[in-house]
Amino acid sequence: MGYGLPALEELVESFRKIKGVGRKSAERMAFEVLNFSDEKAEAFAASIVNAKKKIKKCSNCFNFSEGEVCPVCSDPERDRSTVCVVEDARTVFALENVRNYKGTYHVLEGAISPLEGKGPAQLRIKELLERINNENIGEVIVATNSTAEGETTAMYLAKLISPLGVKVTRLAYGIPFGGELDHADEITLSRAIEGRREIN
Amino acid sequence: MGYGLPALEELVESFRKIKGVGRKSAERMAFEVLNFSDEKAEAFAASIVNAKKKIKKCSNCFNFSEGEVCPVCSDPERDRSTVCVVEDARTVFALENVRNYKGTYHVLEGAISPLEGKGPAQLRIKELLERINNENIGEVIVATNSTAEGETTAMYLAKLISPLGVKVTRLAYGIPFGGELDHADEITLSRAIEGRREIN
Repeated sequence: MGYGLPALEELVESFRKIKGVGRKSAERMAFEVLNFSDEKAEAFAASIVNAKKKIKKCSNCFNFSEGEVCPVCSDPERDRSTVCVVEDARTVFALENVRNYKGTYHVLEGAISPLEGKGPAQLRIKELLERINNENIGEVIVATNSTAEGETTAMYLAKLISPLGVKVTRLAYGIPFGGELDHADEITLSRAIEGRREIN
Repeated sequence: MGYGLPALEELVESFRKIKGVGRKSAERMAFEVLNFSDEKAEAFAASIVNAKKKIKKCSNCFNFSEGEVCPVCSDPERDRSTVCVVEDARTVFALENVRNYKGTYHVLEGAISPLEGKGPAQLRIKELLERINNENIGEVIVATNSTAEGETTAMYLAKLISPLGVKVTRLAYGIPFGGELDHADEITLSRAIEGRREIN
């Protein structure tokens, strides 16, 4: 790679360090950044340092937060009896964009993955149990991903929490809105049939 | 968007300012950067500022360069009689990775695009003509993109440069290596037939 431009190669390598960014994308973005004005490039660099400096984790739910407690946990309007459990803070962001969930969150910081050597002890499950003990929680919505790891985690949590007298629910599976049936995979279709609802 | 994390929103907006990066990608990358260590995030920010500071344009060919003249133009091994004309410096990067081109380059900094109000005067065509006058150039390979703008620019350059007694060539069109014929579009197929070569 490259032809004697170490500063450019370093910038490409910086972009490649972002998970999910491949060589071509990293090169494309690095060249775009070189076309930025000096001010725009400096603002970009400053926003990275600023975000890292200001954004910490909420001490209650482990969502990203600029203060000790995140905006959701500190909002008196939120329904504290319902907790939505997610794998990472990005899911909180996505769910907050939907704007129809009014409960709180709990970020596990991952999912049970024996292949990656990640067990329940590596997740924020202890902290979730503490919240169930201390707060008046009536329902835990398990919104882990629909992957093998996410499903395993959901089953584990259900077995752990249901005996405590707390209702445990899982997000509905089905055809994505706007999705065409002939494009859906078999597992999605089979779950959409299982979860069918009466129209009334 | 967002839920009261201005530093995160600013970081997402920073990524969105990179041409070709959409909202979802910007969010994904911003969250990945938040998971960086402080050192890694600072190194990322520094590489942006450093690249912008160090990388200028070559005064001869307008390729990116850390010095007054780029590594290609200053390499005595390169064949100065052949100039490959490209729309942007990224193409130089791509062609240099191929490692079988031994001539020099000339970066136009765009293509003729009446829709964007970009005419020949906005491109580095004057500088190309100066090089043809001053250097002993025997062939100009026009490697503009295979788009309407790139083709227009190639035709314009051919009409301008051929009368000066300089050979003007264009990159070969055809089926991409590894490409299946039934996946190629009609124009590509038609050009592959036009450009067919005898096997011997």
